[in-house]
Amino acid sequence: MRTEMTPFKEVISYEDALNLLLESITPINECELVPLSQGTGRVLAQDITSDIDVPFFNRAAMDGYAVIAKDTFTASNMSPTKLEVMGEVFAGDRPSFSIKKEQCGIIATGAPLPKGADGVVMVENTDNGRDFVSIYKPAHPGLNVSNRGSDIKKGEKILEKDRMLFPSCIGAIAATGQEKIQVLKRPRVMLVATGSEVIPQGKPMGIGKVYDINTHTLMAVLPRHGAEVETYGIVGDTFEELKKPLKNETYEIIIFTGGSSVGERDLLHDLFTSYGEVLFHGVAVKPGKPTLAAKAGKQLLIGMPGYPTSCLSNAYLLIVPLIRKMAKLPPYQPSTLRLPLSKRIVSTLGRHQFFTVKIENDKAVPAFKESGAITSMAHADGYIEIPERVDMIECGEKVEVKIF
Amino acid sequence: MRTEMTPFKEVISYEDALNLLLESITPINECELVPLSQGTGRVLAQDITSDIDVPFFNRAAMDGYAVIAKDTFTASNMSPTKLEVMGEVFAGDRPSFSIKKEQCGIIATGAPLPKGADGVVMVENTDNGRDFVSIYKPAHPGLNVSNRGSDIKKGEKILEKDRMLFPSCIGAIAATGQEKIQVLKRPRVMLVATGSEVIPQGKPMGIGKVYDINTHTLMAVLPRHGAEVETYGIVGDTFEELKKPLKNETYEIIIFTGGSSVGERDLLHDLFTSYGEVLFHGVAVKPGKPTLAAKAGKQLLIGMPGYPTSCLSNAYLLIVPLIRKMAKLPPYQPSTLRLPLSKRIVSTLGRHQFFTVKIENDKAVPAFKESGAITSMAHADGYIEIPERVDMIECGEKVEVKIF
Repeated sequence: MRTEMTPFKEVISYEDALNLLLESITPINECELVPLSQGTGRVLAQDITSDIDVPFFNRAAMDGYAVIAKDTFTASNMSPTKLEVMGEVFAGDRPSFSIKKEQCGIIATGAPLPKGADGVVMVENTDNGRDFVSIYKPAHPGLNVSNRGSDIKKGEKILEKDRMLFPSCIGAIAATGQEKIQVLKRPRVMLVATGSEVIPQGKPMGIGKVYDINTHTLMAVLPRHGAEVETYGIVGDTFEELKKPLKNETYEIIIFTGGSSVGERDLLHDLFTSYGEVLFHGVAVKPGKPTLAAKAGKQLLIGMPGYPTSCLSNAYLLIVPLIRKMAKLPPYQPSTLRLPLSKRIVSTLGRHQFFTVKIENDKAVPAFKESGAITSMAHADGYIEIPERVDMIECGEKVEVKIF
Repeated sequence: MRTEMTPFKEVISYEDALNLLLESITPINECELVPLSQGTGRVLAQDITSDIDVPFFNRAAMDGYAVIAKDTFTASNMSPTKLEVMGEVFAGDRPSFSIKKEQCGIIATGAPLPKGADGVVMVENTDNGRDFVSIYKPAHPGLNVSNRGSDIKKGEKILEKDRMLFPSCIGAIAATGQEKIQVLKRPRVMLVATGSEVIPQGKPMGIGKVYDINTHTLMAVLPRHGAEVETYGIVGDTFEELKKPLKNETYEIIIFTGGSSVGERDLLHDLFTSYGEVLFHGVAVKPGKPTLAAKAGKQLLIGMPGYPTSCLSNAYLLIVPLIRKMAKLPPYQPSTLRLPLSKRIVSTLGRHQFFTVKIENDKAVPAFKESGAITSMAHADGYIEIPERVDMIECGEKVEVKIF
C-alpha cells in the first residue's frame, strides 16, 4: 500500500480558500503588442492618448448648406435669406473654396466645412437651390457641425492603463489611427491530468479506466476568463511522474486534476509540500472538498478534484476569480435570474454549495444528481450558490440562478 | 452633383426592422467537424449519444472497503463485523480478486468494485485493518458506489442537436470518449467600409478624412456572437466600387458601413435595389436611423450608418440578434443592473433610443455626447434602451442598464 488512508485534515472555508488564492498572486505586469482587431476583452497596458484631433476638421453633421451663421439670423419662411452657392463639398473632399458674407456651400454629412463657414443649415430648411439658395430657418454658430477635436482632443488621454477593452474602446482607439496596442499578457496556465485510471479520448475504454474530462472542461472555461491555457497531458500518480510538469516555469499556474482518493491526494500534498508552501488542503465546498493549493516560488500549484463536477464547480468558484484578478479583468458577472425554487433543497451546513439547476416554467428546478455525474451539470442551465451557514432553502423561495 | 439631396423616406419602427431581418434569414444548417476542445459556445449539429456506459464499471465513490452489504447489516461500534481482506484495488486497476461471504477488499475512490462486492464502507467506519478489518457501520447495497451506467447509459442520447455547448456539455461528451463533434458552421459576414473619406489606420490623417472605425467595432462585436467575420477593406462611394464585394457569394451577410450622407445612402439604396429586394430604408432608432437592408438571393445586404456610435448601437440592436438566430444561438442575455437615473433624460418620441450610461455611485449617469462621438460610448459602462413611445425618464426612475 502506497500511503496511509487518512481522512481529511485542515478543511478551510470557501471564503478563506478564495482569499488565500487571491492574496498569493500578483496581477500580470508584462505586456505585448497586439493588432487592434485582437484587442477586445484584453486589458490595456498603456494609457491611450491621441496624436490627432477627432474629428480632424470642422465636420458637417447633416446634408445641407454650410453658412456663416450670422448671415441667417433673420431667415424665416416668410422672409428667407438668399445666399450665393460657391461650390460643393463631398465627404472625403478638402474644400476648394471659402465662404464670405452672404455666401454658402453645398455640403454633405461628414464633409469639412469650407473656410469661413460656422454652421450647417439642413437641406429641409432651404429651397435646395443650386446657384443661389433660400434659407428658411436661422442657424447659430456650430449648428449641425462637429467641431475639430470635439470628440477627442490631440494629446487627450482617452483610455486608462489597466482597463478592459469593450468594442466601443476599440472604436475610440481606431478613431485615433493607432493600429497596435500594448495589452497585458494573459496568465499562463498548464493543465495536468493525473491518475493511472485516466485515458485520453480515442483510446478504447476498459474496466478501471475513465476518460480525461477535466482537461476538457477547464480548457472550455479558463480561456474565456483571460487565461492562456496549455495541456501537459496525463501523468501517472507517482511522485516521479507528478513532479515532471513542475520543471516548466513558463506558467504562472499549474493545475493538477484528479487524485480523488486520499492516497492520490496525499501524494499531491507531499509534492506540493516539497516544492513550496501549502496554502490549503481541503475546502469546505460541496462538491469539491479535495482541493489543494501551494505557492512554489512564483508559481501557484493547484490540485483540483478528480470528479468532473467538482473540478468544474471549483473552476467557477475558485479559479475564475483567481485568473481574472491575475489578468486584471473586472470580476465576472454572469447573467442571473431570480427565480423561485421548485422544491426544497437540503444543503450541508458548513459547506459552500454549488448547486446546479434547470429553468422550467420560470422556476429553478434542482438538476443535481451526484457529485460524480457530469450529466447533472450538462443538463443544467445554471447554478445557485448556497452559503455554508444555510442548510435549507424552502420550496418557492427565490434564488439567484447564475446562467452558464 | 451626383444625386438629389432628399430627406429620409419610409422609416420603419425598430421592432419591424428587427422582425424583417429575422424573417429574411434561415438558420445555418451546414455543419463542420471540430475537435472537442473547440466546441464551447458552438451549436451541436448532431445528437450526442454514448457508445459506452459511464461509469464503465461499478466504481467506488470513497476510499474504504468493498463489501457484500448484507454481511454488514448488524455491524455497530459495540459489535463490529469482522471481514477478511482479500486484496486491494487502486484507481485504474482491474481487480485481481473477487469477494465471497465475509470477505472484502481495500478500495480507493474511483477504483472498480471487485466481483461480488456491492457496497463500500468508508475507511472512517472501520479499524483500517490490513488482513482482517472490523466494520463499525452497516452498508446497504450501492452505498458509496457509482454503478455502471448511472451517469450515462450506453446508447443514451445525452445532448440534443441544435443546442449550444456549455463547458459542462463538453465534459459530458469527453466522458463518452468522443474526440470530435459535428457543430453548425458559423454565419459568414463580410464587412465593407465605404466612403472616399475613410482611410485605414496607419495612413496619415488629412482634412476631410476619417479613420475606419466601423470595421474595427463590428469585428470586435460580431465574432463573440457566433459570426465568422472577414473584412473586404475600404471601397469608394461609386456604384462600380460598391458592387465589387457583392461578387463574393461565400458570405451570408454583407455589411456596408458608412454612407452617412443622403447621397451616399441613396447610392447604396440604388445598389441594393438593383441586386435584390429592399427590406427597409431607414429605421426609427436613435442614433442609427440611416440603416438599410435588402435580400439578394441567399444573401442579406445591410447598410450601416457611418457614424461610429450609430453603427455600433445598431450592431447591438439589430445585427447581434440576427446573427445569433442564424447561428441558432440562444438570445443574448447581457448582464444587467437596475439602477436609478442620475438625471432626467428627454428622448425622441417615435424613435427607439440606444442611450449610453456610466455607473457612478449606484446610479445610471447619462454618457451620451452626440451621435458622432465614439468617446461617449467608450467611456460608458453600458446602455439603456428607451422604447419609441417614451419621451422622458425622470431623475431617480429605475432603468435597466445592459452592461457592455
